[in-house]
Amino acid sequence: MNFKTLELKDNLLRWIDQTELPLELIYKESNDYQKIITAIKRLEVRGAPAIGIAAAYGLAMAVEQHNDISPEFVLSIGNQFKAARPTAVNLFWAIDRMLEKYQTLLGGEKATIIKALFDEAREIHDEDIRLCEAIGKAGAELIKDGDSVLTHCNAGALATGGIGTALGVLYTCHNQGKNIKVFADETRPLLQGARLTTWELMQENIDVTLICDNMAGMLMKQGRVDHVIVGADRIAKNGDFANKIGTYSVAVLAKENNVPFYVAAPYSTFDNEMETGEEIVIEERAPEEVTEGFGKRTAPEKVPVYSPAFDVTPCELVSYYITEDGLKPGKR
Amino acid sequence: MNFKTLELKDNLLRWIDQTELPLELIYKESNDYQKIITAIKRLEVRGAPAIGIAAAYGLAMAVEQHNDISPEFVLSIGNQFKAARPTAVNLFWAIDRMLEKYQTLLGGEKATIIKALFDEAREIHDEDIRLCEAIGKAGAELIKDGDSVLTHCNAGALATGGIGTALGVLYTCHNQGKNIKVFADETRPLLQGARLTTWELMQENIDVTLICDNMAGMLMKQGRVDHVIVGADRIAKNGDFANKIGTYSVAVLAKENNVPFYVAAPYSTFDNEMETGEEIVIEERAPEEVTEGFGKRTAPEKVPVYSPAFDVTPCELVSYYITEDGLKPGKR
Repeated sequence: MNFKTLELKDNLLRWIDQTELPLELIYKESNDYQKIITAIKRLEVRGAPAIGIAAAYGLAMAVEQHNDISPEFVLSIGNQFKAARPTAVNLFWAIDRMLEKYQTLLGGEKATIIKALFDEAREIHDEDIRLCEAIGKAGAELIKDGDSVLTHCNAGALATGGIGTALGVLYTCHNQGKNIKVFADETRPLLQGARLTTWELMQENIDVTLICDNMAGMLMKQGRVDHVIVGADRIAKNGDFANKIGTYSVAVLAKENNVPFYVAAPYSTFDNEMETGEEIVIEERAPEEVTEGFGKRTAPEKVPVYSPAFDVTPCELVSYYITEDGLKPGKR
Repeated sequence: MNFKTLELKDNLLRWIDQTELPLELIYKESNDYQKIITAIKRLEVRGAPAIGIAAAYGLAMAVEQHNDISPEFVLSIGNQFKAARPTAVNLFWAIDRMLEKYQTLLGGEKATIIKALFDEAREIHDEDIRLCEAIGKAGAELIKDGDSVLTHCNAGALATGGIGTALGVLYTCHNQGKNIKVFADETRPLLQGARLTTWELMQENIDVTLICDNMAGMLMKQGRVDHVIVGADRIAKNGDFANKIGTYSVAVLAKENNVPFYVAAPYSTFDNEMETGEEIVIEERAPEEVTEGFGKRTAPEKVPVYSPAFDVTPCELVSYYITEDGLKPGKR
């Protein structure tokens, strides 16, 4: 990759401010945990695995920043991070893993604790790189030379610590020498597909065509899509999963048109405490993202808006889950 | 209605420049037929029935403007209008009706011909007003007090000479005293739902909530949509129909979730020369409408874009066609 979504240098986190893409590639850096929380809330850092990694580094920074490293304080920091985005389970998973590590360090020297926490965060990051590679390899088996693939939102290098989950599969195909054609849904309201997925695929010279979300169905009906691959923010025990709003619609259209539908995600996205997707809490976003998202107002003043950030796709619409342990069949 | 989409005064056409809505309500007027063609191309006037009416007035203006009123000239004017937008059949229907009228006038006084052509255009307009009323009445039978309705794009007063087709049904319900709740898909790329449907429903105090196109499926799955109503740009003999891009997806999602799906359109939208939707020519629009549609660029430079303006929904996804002659069952 020609860019680094997240990078730690001397206990300082450096990240791409993804709100500025694709017009500008701006890196920001900080060792202040509150700035990391803000970056997650503002979607400067986004994508379930990337949020988890940034939060893990941020928790280590918070401990380094403060004299108080009592369990109460560290737990409260963890809760601040968890409150930043409610839907992505990787955030909760990463913070809980950091808190567990912290528990094992209680009573130790502060410097030792800080080092161990940064090491743990770095391990979460390194592990994510390996998970993306393994997911890419597993998913690439599904895709032949010449195939076309549709994806929604951005589950790429910009969303993870590595080469991405859904897009990791595409990079792996590309590196294997397969010619693939990608259709990227623009993904309203925040246009992660238009702004981020096209940008990162173009960096790697992968053939990508941008469409509006409402064009995906027509393309499938025309037989121009061989596979759909998306990422996930949370997968329940029965296989129902939350992902960017619009994923459910794409899954229904894929079923209607006999296009296989895959979900690419590492084990940290599987929530073993949730039986079904019914229980998943869906974040609602501000109306202005819909009505003023592009620099000018595009709807009447005071119009009521409903803007869920995610939807839940039932397991019956999934052909395969692509994980680091290989392909797991869905219930479609 | 508090506004007039199209109005003829002293052989001068006055129209709302819909590209400026909802921020500004700007009326334009002209008696120059080329300005009418430009207004249709620029989507200042849009919506299949409204385009047909504007083109009919425009053809009369062209004859008034020129000394040459030979059949060759008048036919060439008609072809210029037909080339303005290729998908809406009403445009072709209205121009052909005007040309037939012209045929009956051959050899007459120029003043007589002009008057008769304006009269014919006015009759097309008046007839559309009556058609909308009748469609509204027929469709209102399907909707109960308290129901919620989802619509895509704008098939309202702004798209016709009267109260609209799909939205005409909603205005009729509202006037009958039924409380209805409307969800309006924003309708990318040109946001006719966000800009126009919300605007005109709010003018009439109808409860409308704006959503992104990719949220419609989730709402249906949650059981929050009782009916879907859309307009049409062209309906083939078997019932397949072209309408704004994204309509097909909404229809598939409605079937999946057992939500009835209606198409509201007058007889002039039915194309009796087309057997199935396969034959419908789909207009493709400029990439900039997707990548720069909101005042700032939202995708990388040089990204390939596919942007069909319409899609075709098969008759098997339609519960009812709502016409001026009442309800006609679809094949769902």
